[in-house]
Amino acid sequence: MIITLLTDFGCRDSFVAQMKGVILGLQPKAVIVDITHEVPPFGIREAAFVLRSAHRYFPKGTIHVTVVDPGVGGGRRPLLVANRQGLFLAPDNGVLSYIYHDHPASRIHQITSRKFRMKPHSSTFNGRDLFAPAAAWLSKGLSPSKLGKRIADPVRFPIPRIRRRTRGSVEGEVVHVDRFGNLITNIERKDLAAWLSDGRRAVIRIKRHRIEGIHRFYAEVPRAGLGAVINSDDLLEVCGRQRNAASLLNASPGETVVVE
Amino acid sequence: MIITLLTDFGCRDSFVAQMKGVILGLQPKAVIVDITHEVPPFGIREAAFVLRSAHRYFPKGTIHVTVVDPGVGGGRRPLLVANRQGLFLAPDNGVLSYIYHDHPASRIHQITSRKFRMKPHSSTFNGRDLFAPAAAWLSKGLSPSKLGKRIADPVRFPIPRIRRRTRGSVEGEVVHVDRFGNLITNIERKDLAAWLSDGRRAVIRIKRHRIEGIHRFYAEVPRAGLGAVINSDDLLEVCGRQRNAASLLNASPGETVVVE
Amino acid sequence: MIITLLTDFGCRDSFVAQMKGVILGLQPKAVIVDITHEVPPFGIREAAFVLRSAHRYFPKGTIHVTVVDPGVGGGRRPLLVANRQGLFLAPDNGVLSYIYHDHPASRIHQITSRKFRMKPHSSTFNGRDLFAPAAAWLSKGLSPSKLGKRIADPVRFPIPRIRRRTRGSVEGEVVHVDRFGNLITNIERKDLAAWLSDGRRAVIRIKRHRIEGIHRFYAEVPRAGLGAVINSDDLLEVCGRQRNAASLLNASPGETVVVE
Repeated sequence: MIITLLTDFGCRDSFVAQMKGVILGLQPKAVIVDITHEVPPFGIREAAFVLRSAHRYFPKGTIHVTVVDPGVGGGRRPLLVANRQGLFLAPDNGVLSYIYHDHPASRIHQITSRKFRMKPHSSTFNGRDLFAPAAAWLSKGLSPSKLGKRIADPVRFPIPRIRRRTRGSVEGEVVHVDRFGNLITNIERKDLAAWLSDGRRAVIRIKRHRIEGIHRFYAEVPRAGLGAVINSDDLLEVCGRQRNAASLLNASPGETVVVE
Repeated sequence: MIITLLTDFGCRDSFVAQMKGVILGLQPKAVIVDITHEVPPFGIREAAFVLRSAHRYFPKGTIHVTVVDPGVGGGRRPLLVANRQGLFLAPDNGVLSYIYHDHPASRIHQITSRKFRMKPHSSTFNGRDLFAPAAAWLSKGLSPSKLGKRIADPVRFPIPRIRRRTRGSVEGEVVHVDRFGNLITNIERKDLAAWLSDGRRAVIRIKRHRIEGIHRFYAEVPRAGLGAVINSDDLLEVCGRQRNAASLLNASPGETVVVE
Repeated sequence: MIITLLTDFGCRDSFVAQMKGVILGLQPKAVIVDITHEVPPFGIREAAFVLRSAHRYFPKGTIHVTVVDPGVGGGRRPLLVANRQGLFLAPDNGVLSYIYHDHPASRIHQITSRKFRMKPHSSTFNGRDLFAPAAAWLSKGLSPSKLGKRIADPVRFPIPRIRRRTRGSVEGEVVHVDRFGNLITNIERKDLAAWLSDGRRAVIRIKRHRIEGIHRFYAEVPRAGLGAVINSDDLLEVCGRQRNAASLLNASPGETVVVE
């Protein structure tokens, strides 16, 4: 049974290991996979995007635990979300926004039962004391309804949408910068159907730069300049040829990108 | 059978992977969990603190391998420590100081047998050639006494103790800075019993700063200032509200903290 | 069945997790071990060296997946290499150069079958869509020949060789800098047989510095200076005593090292 972990805990401290110890104590057969623990501290939107990309590639029924949780201990609710892709445990702070969007039939439970928590239970580390044991119990077959009642009003942030403009252009924005400095946008392959039949005709504009055409892969991008590809998530991405596009353009999430 | 690894080897090189290869070659059923490999190079005290926090959350019988080992190859002894919590393998340089303190009934063996080492055996990488195979053999049921005789004089560093001062104040120090910049002290929940009945009355002093009261969780800390909580290890911690307290105060381990 | 992963994907994004999800979906029994994901972006030579060091310590039959792949999507061939040590999957860009060198009897297959790929298949992420599923299928017993025909002309970079000079000195170069700043050279223990019978007589020269003798282990190196040891890979290494030799010498891979 696979349990994934996605946090902003970093890898210097033992927070992640403590969660794994708790899970393995309850469920010795758990196969634990780290998605990442290098989300910037309190980076709810960044974590939400990473979870969106990652969860699709895990087998159905995988249990995904996401803990980016500045409000731990306060009034924010701990949630369990069940849908056809798997189970998602996270604080109710918007970090599951893409999950609700991608899986509208999600059933959302507030975790209220105290039965499946660590005892004693700290007020500052729900990852270890609440989410980890809940994940372990779910992997042993616990029914989601045993953890708490369904709710209908989870916190969600607005997912950045593209805008269609006059003369058929599409305006989107950078939503993530990856390790290579590639600028990943919210413009999907399907939004670009008009251009993809003839890649040379698209012009991508970002920060006064003009990029000609959509390439099929990174090695097609001109050596000296910038390029654009449809990436492995089917999203338009601005990239360099073995160069860091984010540094070259001094661009970060939120930056406007237009395809004409 | 769980084997944890805690080192200062970092994640850029293949040192950790070499240890895992050795373990899995001898014990294919090992469940290997990384505690951290990002301890600063030669950071014995930092590793000791991380091990202290982490080991409590693993099932009894877990085998913990800690390799921060500036003296590798020289006269320092390789050790195996057995107690009711589990088995601990490490060089004899103080990195197990908290383990001896928390588990006074620990039985300490010097590893002298050459039978359970890699052959050939390097003089610069005991983690791979001595500790990893010993851990694998122990997980297969090897008795600790087969590795070597018991000793009674392990190297241990003095664990920083709190001081009770006049008029009931408590003086401790910062012992660890976590990834969020939280300043973790050696002042335990039980040391603060007089204040915790009424959190508002405590005043925490650090570097000319005065913090009013002990909060229950991070989200209770004032937005602009600093706060204090009892953390998930039951230790007093100075923290910001989604801000890095260590940077704000320019504080590091060793800094004095007083509760009045 | 062990599958190792070595990439330049870093740990901030979910690229590695996506590969693991794909592998575990096809082969739930896979034991996945990270070698490293912190190879510098596009660092083919660095990855090649890390793979050389790491693969020897894994059980025979281990499947090693190496993805440092600036040419993904273009004409470069995806390869599967089989030898008595295990199976190696990687793009044909030289990253397996040491493997060909260490295992001259390697059988090299170009992966051409489309049957064992993800569908749909991106043109920018072969790690997930081609190498991960191929590794999973191989771990289930798929014969290498089912993936594609053998080739005889893989891309390989020249492995830096030592030069014997007049009066018996040996000239090599730094090939890797590890996390501790140790400067690992391509001079092997066997190249130094003339000196190792009496370590004091060797003189190591690097960047106008003169190091006297080859020490047995790090703790023998003088506190204030630099030293040299034969490391755990049987390679000559220039090091400090708990100090970063690379910083002290401002040295990096390619730097000349002479033993006289």
